[in-house]
Amino acid sequence: MTIDSIYEPIQEDLIKVEEGLKAFCRADEYPWMAEHLRYALGDGGKRIRPALVLLAAKFHRYDLEALVPVATAVEVFHNATLVHDDFVDKSPLRRGKPSVVSVSGDSVALLLGDYLFAGSGDLVSSARNHRVTRLFSQTIMKICSGQLKELTSAYNWQRNQQDYYDEIDSKTATLFSTAAESGAVLSEAPEEVVEALKHYGRELGMAFQVIDDILDYIGDESKLGKPAGSDLLQGTVTLPAILFIESYPGDNPLKEVFKIKGNQSEVRRFIDMVRNSSAVQQCYNIAAGFTAQACRALERLPDNAARRSLIDLADYVVERRT
Amino acid sequence: MTIDSIYEPIQEDLIKVEEGLKAFCRADEYPWMAEHLRYALGDGGKRIRPALVLLAAKFHRYDLEALVPVATAVEVFHNATLVHDDFVDKSPLRRGKPSVVSVSGDSVALLLGDYLFAGSGDLVSSARNHRVTRLFSQTIMKICSGQLKELTSAYNWQRNQQDYYDEIDSKTATLFSTAAESGAVLSEAPEEVVEALKHYGRELGMAFQVIDDILDYIGDESKLGKPAGSDLLQGTVTLPAILFIESYPGDNPLKEVFKIKGNQSEVRRFIDMVRNSSAVQQCYNIAAGFTAQACRALERLPDNAARRSLIDLADYVVERRT
Repeated sequence: MTIDSIYEPIQEDLIKVEEGLKAFCRADEYPWMAEHLRYALGDGGKRIRPALVLLAAKFHRYDLEALVPVATAVEVFHNATLVHDDFVDKSPLRRGKPSVVSVSGDSVALLLGDYLFAGSGDLVSSARNHRVTRLFSQTIMKICSGQLKELTSAYNWQRNQQDYYDEIDSKTATLFSTAAESGAVLSEAPEEVVEALKHYGRELGMAFQVIDDILDYIGDESKLGKPAGSDLLQGTVTLPAILFIESYPGDNPLKEVFKIKGNQSEVRRFIDMVRNSSAVQQCYNIAAGFTAQACRALERLPDNAARRSLIDLADYVVERRT
Repeated sequence: MTIDSIYEPIQEDLIKVEEGLKAFCRADEYPWMAEHLRYALGDGGKRIRPALVLLAAKFHRYDLEALVPVATAVEVFHNATLVHDDFVDKSPLRRGKPSVVSVSGDSVALLLGDYLFAGSGDLVSSARNHRVTRLFSQTIMKICSGQLKELTSAYNWQRNQQDYYDEIDSKTATLFSTAAESGAVLSEAPEEVVEALKHYGRELGMAFQVIDDILDYIGDESKLGKPAGSDLLQGTVTLPAILFIESYPGDNPLKEVFKIKGNQSEVRRFIDMVRNSSAVQQCYNIAAGFTAQACRALERLPDNAARRSLIDLADYVVERRT
């Protein structure tokens, strides 16, 4: 299943989103912005979040005029979080290229990220739906509050599964859920349909992040655009490590590894142990559990092309290699 | 003229804004946030921007239920810009206390500022006025775009008056203008009244910043809460320095001073020269010119208590010592 075939019901409208992104980059009167916004938004990408907005609206009134700016806003929002994340995480790379912060420095990354957040606010409010507009602000607040909580958890070898799920819920699943909810609300769907699609979005987002965190251990470095194991090398303990540690009750092997910060060779050895353990398959099972929940949420929706796409998208998210 | 007597027509409603700010600080489910948000918002302060929202609404329908969240939002917004500004400018102090970035570090300052911006978006969208909501996003974009432009101008001894006015327009006057415009729009004032109040806000904001930049040279350090001349010590060339340099045509004395970066004693000598020159009085005249424009914009409005307060506020802004 390719992403293009999944996007078939919304393909033309996704092109309008791409045009919306290009127009957004060009809109500021200060010419320097255009190039830097284009760089921050990246070219191409899977555009899963805008697709979610559009597909979630396919069950009731499909109002393209409101949907395109909101789908564009979700992608701008997503990239705002990436620019600020790379700052917080001091990540040198993003999509295989130097991150905004490493190319342009702290102040530019901060201001460009602010501009992108505000730009997503401008786009979403142009659709003139109070609930959706407000949802965007609340999503930023949830993400920031979650990240502030996370700041204190780096190099925490005692992190458990629940800490991890709380983190990825606010970090990733919130925006997936907001994307789906926004599309459903804009389509004027009844509240139970909105809830179902919001639930789908959240579970899909959880699966998406679990897979991301698996790929950080086992993915192809050239395709990921970053070195394998970079999460743990930065002190971020994700699900594969947590499950691996759980198989050593009473004797947490990460405690020793983190004892001396900056001991990269010990961390690399630990990464290899995780990679070759059954923790990876367990993570896949957990991701599949989330997508199963996602698809279950769709059961009450009519069986149309959009629903089939959402189900296929859930499979795609688990099977993806990048 | 005290600020309390100027605020007389809106005094009770400003108390509701203070309550709104307190409620905002307490609202997040992560308890750590409350204390850090309170610190970022500071206690007290002149609350000029919320007052502008309220006073600008006093010419038509004064809808307190919408005005209080928007006035609160403007103050939250203002403090978001301060948290991120102090990051960009590496300012150790804010209101005489350590800035958020110097207390809590880069990542916390970034995320807390993001949270504050989003919180202002949440508050403003709760008032359910599309134009005002959108205005807030566009104001952030204008401020960021202006600041990105400014990043390249540090230690620029060739800066002229127009560069300076462009900067303070986006940095300060935009939010004053947005505050006044928001109040007027929420009051359902006719477009020419909205324009008049927006114009007043902008000119008042220009005057406010010129005075801020004068006080940086001549103000009382203990009252300002930062060392005198800190702008120029950080390489920021403001109006007093620009006017002082203009009195030396063909021989810019700042060129030499900035030749060796970090040469603080030379910068301090230059600051003393500016302080004792006629440039300071020229700046006051320019500020008075802006407030005269501000008051002229009010001429077509009915003569009521709010208009008298706005006129007095213009005087207050020029006469203030902190």
